[in-house]
Amino acid sequence: MFELMRKVIIGVMGPGENATEEDKKNAFELGRLIAEKGWILLTGGRNAGVMDEASKGAKSTGGLTVGIIPSKNKTDASEAVDVAIITGMGSARNFINILSSDIVIACGMEAGTASEIALSLKEKKNVILLTNNQEAKAFFRNLNPELISIVSTPQEAIEKTQSLL
Amino acid sequence: MFELMRKVIIGVMGPGENATEEDKKNAFELGRLIAEKGWILLTGGRNAGVMDEASKGAKSTGGLTVGIIPSKNKTDASEAVDVAIITGMGSARNFINILSSDIVIACGMEAGTASEIALSLKEKKNVILLTNNQEAKAFFRNLNPELISIVSTPQEAIEKTQSLL
Amino acid sequence: MFELMRKVIIGVMGPGENATEEDKKNAFELGRLIAEKGWILLTGGRNAGVMDEASKGAKSTGGLTVGIIPSKNKTDASEAVDVAIITGMGSARNFINILSSDIVIACGMEAGTASEIALSLKEKKNVILLTNNQEAKAFFRNLNPELISIVSTPQEAIEKTQSLL
Amino acid sequence: MFELMRKVIIGVMGPGENATEEDKKNAFELGRLIAEKGWILLTGGRNAGVMDEASKGAKSTGGLTVGIIPSKNKTDASEAVDVAIITGMGSARNFINILSSDIVIACGMEAGTASEIALSLKEKKNVILLTNNQEAKAFFRNLNPELISIVSTPQEAIEKTQSLL
Repeated sequence: MFELMRKVIIGVMGPGENATEEDKKNAFELGRLIAEKGWILLTGGRNAGVMDEASKGAKSTGGLTVGIIPSKNKTDASEAVDVAIITGMGSARNFINILSSDIVIACGMEAGTASEIALSLKEKKNVILLTNNQEAKAFFRNLNPELISIVSTPQEAIEKTQSLL
Repeated sequence: MFELMRKVIIGVMGPGENATEEDKKNAFELGRLIAEKGWILLTGGRNAGVMDEASKGAKSTGGLTVGIIPSKNKTDASEAVDVAIITGMGSARNFINILSSDIVIACGMEAGTASEIALSLKEKKNVILLTNNQEAKAFFRNLNPELISIVSTPQEAIEKTQSLL
Repeated sequence: MFELMRKVIIGVMGPGENATEEDKKNAFELGRLIAEKGWILLTGGRNAGVMDEASKGAKSTGGLTVGIIPSKNKTDASEAVDVAIITGMGSARNFINILSSDIVIACGMEAGTASEIALSLKEKKNVILLTNNQEAKAFFRNLNPELISIVSTPQEAIEKTQSLL
Repeated sequence: MFELMRKVIIGVMGPGENATEEDKKNAFELGRLIAEKGWILLTGGRNAGVMDEASKGAKSTGGLTVGIIPSKNKTDASEAVDVAIITGMGSARNFINILSSDIVIACGMEAGTASEIALSLKEKKNVILLTNNQEAKAFFRNLNPELISIVSTPQEAIEKTQSLL
């Protein structure tokens, strides 16, 4: 009756306003590669940093982008988000971000990102770390060596994602 | 750089396992008409009743369907849901359903549906009622005459939706 | 080792800024009677209307009051709330209000209150209605005659609560 | 009209089933000292590990204990929890834990605890770490040196808490 469209959803989590130039460049490339694979991109959806750049990367090659917005304002969404889910729950929406993602890629590091990695581990979900933060890598790998993968480039993150699906 | 894909999101809320045959028929038709308009369909996403039928209706004509799942299990999602947002929050996700919808259509009536109508009114969002429940119509119209519209058919619901956008 | 202190929790839900003088008078009396019974009072916690008055009534006779605050600001809490639970989730916290209450008393009526009654019914929880809103009484009694009780005074609400525990 | 009872709320977060004997001993002592200070103890509320022991410690000296339960079942609450707040939101309730606490003490370490520390930092809230996990201490101190305090004993945690209020 209809073509089943359910697709893999890959979450890309990372800093908003505090994202570095490298974080943003990596995020755009992650979004682009995720879209090329035919996967759906899910982010925290705001018009800032990794969320915005990953969404733009995915749209640059025709992907589908979902954003889980913390506020009640649709205008907080990145213009590159196709489907804006409005939660009005602040950082409690981080739990939805990771539950809805088949695999989580952390691009860069700050407190919100750390909470998403930790919640992923709590839910026994694979997390791929793309960050220069050595303490983060040591801590999360130590917390759950089986679920944490550490990569150095967006391309490597996508290869790891593919192998885990 | 990319084609902006943000689209209107129309929420269709209604009973799951307790949906009547008429509710289900109306839900399928609502989903179909929403997709034909080029709007995104958003439902509570479960594999039951109005959520399932509206999603199937939208997919029957190539629409995009979003489901906000109350449990932590992606397998609870209707097979006609393209984007399954997993909340793990039970009926607290009803708030996300209505915040994410530009307009809410209630198809049929039960306690969960009533909570979504009430939350919509709380958030000053238009609600279109398609139900035979006379007490529901009297109560909600009385609660907020400006935001509540009452219709008799799916076609009429879509015309009303169009006029409110 | 310690005296077990778990007590019955009675939720009193009702309008904030839009509460009528009668709603507020009833709320104060409900709070007072709940405290006299030795029960804990739980409300939406804000410094307005039924939430505020019920909490003040309970404190007037030495009761313990819990408030589930929708915002992230503890300063939104009524000064008569002993334990302010800060959710930052807006009206999604209505689900917590009713899950945490052994029995829910609705004092007055508006959209938020209606959502709490509906969520209570969804969760198979007893609700006692103290309101002049005839349409509300007709609608909710029709939705679930077994779980809805209709009363005319705070005293009657407390007697009904006692009988349901 | 009434004696204002609003008190400081101190959150103690830590592992449940995976708590070590040392975590549990520390948790009991933290709860006891918090109660002696006249503060309210808030935990994740479950009948396991740090949540359970901290609550028992607080009750051993007559304190007031609040538990924010992740499930919908009041029976999951520790018997030493006076006020059980039922969220039905799983680990999304971690956000409520930290928003409701004036200061957060992390006793031991696992993924859920790490998410609570990270969410605290996101919300600019002071966190006191009582753990042997060296990687955790290095990571969180690096993430926000101003908000993170590291202590070695429950007594030291309470002194630090006092100084931060």
